Amino acid sequence: MKDGGLGEFGRIRRFFAPLAGSGGLDLRDDAALLACNPGKQLVVTVDAIVSGVHYLPDDPPGLVARKLLRVNLSDLAAMGARARHYLLTTALPTTVADDWVEAFAAGLGEDQRRYKIDLLGGDSVATDGPAVLSLTAIGEIAAGAEIRRSGARSGDQIWVSGTIGDAMLGLQALRGSHKSMPAEQRATLIRRFQLPEPRVELGPRLVGIARAMLDVSDGLVADLGHICEASQTGATIGLPQVPLSRAAQQLGAADPALPARLVTAGDDYELLFTAPSDSADRIRQLSQELRLPLTAIGTIEKGAGVRLVDGEGKEVPLTNTGYRHF
Amino acid sequence: MKDGGLGEFGRIRRFFAPLAGSGGLDLRDDAALLACNPGKQLVVTVDAIVSGVHYLPDDPPGLVARKLLRVNLSDLAAMGARARHYLLTTALPTTVADDWVEAFAAGLGEDQRRYKIDLLGGDSVATDGPAVLSLTAIGEIAAGAEIRRSGARSGDQIWVSGTIGDAMLGLQALRGSHKSMPAEQRATLIRRFQLPEPRVELGPRLVGIARAMLDVSDGLVADLGHICEASQTGATIGLPQVPLSRAAQQLGAADPALPARLVTAGDDYELLFTAPSDSADRIRQLSQELRLPLTAIGTIEKGAGVRLVDGEGKEVPLTNTGYRHF
Repeated sequence: MKDGGLGEFGRIRRFFAPLAGSGGLDLRDDAALLACNPGKQLVVTVDAIVSGVHYLPDDPPGLVARKLLRVNLSDLAAMGARARHYLLTTALPTTVADDWVEAFAAGLGEDQRRYKIDLLGGDSVATDGPAVLSLTAIGEIAAGAEIRRSGARSGDQIWVSGTIGDAMLGLQALRGSHKSMPAEQRATLIRRFQLPEPRVELGPRLVGIARAMLDVSDGLVADLGHICEASQTGATIGLPQVPLSRAAQQLGAADPALPARLVTAGDDYELLFTAPSDSADRIRQLSQELRLPLTAIGTIEKGAGVRLVDGEGKEVPLTNTGYRHF
Repeated sequence: MKDGGLGEFGRIRRFFAPLAGSGGLDLRDDAALLACNPGKQLVVTVDAIVSGVHYLPDDPPGLVARKLLRVNLSDLAAMGARARHYLLTTALPTTVADDWVEAFAAGLGEDQRRYKIDLLGGDSVATDGPAVLSLTAIGEIAAGAEIRRSGARSGDQIWVSGTIGDAMLGLQALRGSHKSMPAEQRATLIRRFQLPEPRVELGPRLVGIARAMLDVSDGLVADLGHICEASQTGATIGLPQVPLSRAAQQLGAADPALPARLVTAGDDYELLFTAPSDSADRIRQLSQELRLPLTAIGTIEKGAGVRLVDGEGKEVPLTNTGYRHF
């Protein structure tokens, strides 16, 4: 890491040590400390991203950092947990300069204030290949209160937060599509791809309400399939019920096949959950409190697999249930 | 990751899910669960290794896995903690075949039985560059009982476990040196480099005895320097007191400058700790119980920095206090 710059230790001292919480011991010890609150359990997740695969080498480093952090916070929220700490591993090419690392750490700093979390520790190594960034996030939830994927029951309503498909449209816009769209709308879509909003307030508030939950990262249909598989159920969702942003609706007016593609797009980081139908009022109230749309889009059923139907109840064929990046 | 093989999900199901503990939820949820025992705190550490930097691409994958796990267990032991769980992130080139991953996971399985730990979760991504492997280990210790680097006090004795410098000699042997050495001795040295023995029994037993501790990874002198810096002390160690293996002693007989190089070599993963001199009897007793050499090699002093002295108390110059891999 000696590239005439600060070197590995210098970067840790200068850019990352200020992010450390008290358990991080100034990032100078062999390991970090983590107190457990009585009656709580910890929830742990890890996600890695690779330059050129999950982000582009010239993406702003602060945004890369914040997205990496946020996708992990989304995973914690999807279990109903509140985030507390994180650890970071960076494998960077020696060509990455100190100011990239500084901007990356500044992005982390901004989001850790926003989400009230702190850095516990990490490791930094050099690689000849593309940068690989890995983040372990640690949250907390009352013992036994976690919301798993496997809790869906036949008859549950299926709900989703926010709007679906904007991240894919944002990626397309980043690559030069949707040029006729108003600049502000286009920027909003790009933002949805580059900087998701993990639903950190919603997730914990759904404890005791949602029976199964995850965050939409592979695509709405594929992720609902994960819930069905884990819960040994089937599901039907109504395409007209799937919440779309104004931008997506306008694009869909010109391209009627678009909505069926948006439900297979990934990276939205909205929460997808199931709940008994008598919880609908509580969920609508929660939606108002949080000023976040929560939309019922279908029903959990006996059987297996996910069916998508149109306004007349006719099945809509799905050509692509996975999601690929660049 | 689709290379005609199992693919990412297939590899997780087949090779890694069997390693998951109950908190790992079969590696199918967004995050893992981690119960806290009353009165305990958790201790967390992360280490990453890169192919071609920290290990060689054709090293046996099971050994790579076990070394990655063990260096993290060594970090936990160095705080006095007992290991419980780990998370794994792999960024692998698509050219890595399923049987490499299978052997890697088998190595993890072997060591997790040995060390009574389990897999909580992880992530796997593809990279165009060399493999980057990152492991987060989680241990446990009574609240407030951790042994930090900063606790050394003037007058403390300095102790080290096992023998020093063998990992460097093993790396040299791997590269073709030391050919005149008996094959068995040579294999033992190589083993010390490829598969360190983290001192997982010793570390927790030093709670209440050691005032400062870390594991020797940068080299005995450099790591003692870390303790001195964190504790705002100096230290003197006697070169003749530094414990060497029979192999190192024999090589030293032919090359009198060798011992001074061995104390700057890294990757030994022995525990280096300080303790008040009236603890010496307890430490010697512990050494007998664990059948592990524990050797007093010097003294913590007022001041700053590490001095190395010979049998006559004359300072031995240090040419190299860092440690570099390949």
